[in-house]
Amino acid sequence: MRLGAPVYIALLHYPVYNKNMEVIATSITNMDLHDIARSARTYNVTRYYLIHPYEPQRRLMQDILEYWRDGYGGEYNPDRREAFLRVALRASLAEVEDEIERETGFKPLKVTTDARRYPNTVSYRRLREEIRRGEKPFLILFGTGWGIEKGVMLASHYILEPVMGGADYNHLSVRAAAAIILDRLLGESWWEENGER
Amino acid sequence: MRLGAPVYIALLHYPVYNKNMEVIATSITNMDLHDIARSARTYNVTRYYLIHPYEPQRRLMQDILEYWRDGYGGEYNPDRREAFLRVALRASLAEVEDEIERETGFKPLKVTTDARRYPNTVSYRRLREEIRRGEKPFLILFGTGWGIEKGVMLASHYILEPVMGGADYNHLSVRAAAAIILDRLLGESWWEENGER
Repeated sequence: MRLGAPVYIALLHYPVYNKNMEVIATSITNMDLHDIARSARTYNVTRYYLIHPYEPQRRLMQDILEYWRDGYGGEYNPDRREAFLRVALRASLAEVEDEIERETGFKPLKVTTDARRYPNTVSYRRLREEIRRGEKPFLILFGTGWGIEKGVMLASHYILEPVMGGADYNHLSVRAAAAIILDRLLGESWWEENGER
Repeated sequence: MRLGAPVYIALLHYPVYNKNMEVIATSITNMDLHDIARSARTYNVTRYYLIHPYEPQRRLMQDILEYWRDGYGGEYNPDRREAFLRVALRASLAEVEDEIERETGFKPLKVTTDARRYPNTVSYRRLREEIRRGEKPFLILFGTGWGIEKGVMLASHYILEPVMGGADYNHLSVRAAAAIILDRLLGESWWEENGER
């Protein structure tokens, strides 16, 4: 068991920008489902939400989820099954927030990431400490397409620093970015520094 | 420019194990090409090698590479082009090692990862410091399938600790594992701790 506040993550397929900065809904992809579910389970995230407003998209993904949870996929690869038990498909961010509030008694503190800096930009070290000491749940949002719509960004409690690797290039896949952010916030170095193991 | 030793990475499609611990060659996948190329560029890795013994597999991937480097892909998405400029397809690990030796004057120090611990298992912090102080090139190997063949593991200079997230589950995708390992070895925390910026 991880100590500290419960952590949820969500992958937003709407509202996000396309290349021309129009607000769109992106397709759910199989690779985002698999890779991020495995990372979420590795870092003991309470639930990984895929958020999409269109019911047919959610139904398609639900079929895939069930194959890995209850069908042959889960028999063939029990580790994948275990990761997928923590995945849920929901229609909107508001629905996810309400669900977390019902589950924990608190509205989640929303965390986003962006390539730019904002007045409420926070370091990984600080957020890691807040999660460690916290009681209220955290909900970390990842965007698809060309990034999360501005209104959602402005309504978040924390914006994480951009992930930089010491070069001038910052175009990680969302699968890689989610893995790195979970490691920085919840990974071993966190435990080591806090003397938990 | 990153200070310290040059770092190369390679994704091994042979020799690796399948689920029954037989040594096989796995297929190159488009997602491993894209995601790991973007992570490698973000962390300023000198070159990302995809290693596959079968020429038809390499030729197929070469076509995809060229689409992003010189074709419409590179026009549509110049960031992807930039990442793909550091990708190379080679037939064997020996060929990669020889190429790095010709380029740098030194045989690379090979680094692997494994879910188990070995006598030459090294912490991320220690390897980060060795890269920072080092002159000889490092070559970090990532496996596909059910992991890198034992002979290659035993011939590596360092074996990194397994990536654990504070839970009992350790089944990251190779795309996520590569991102996390590059961040731990070359990411910002490295710079911060070493006072470089």
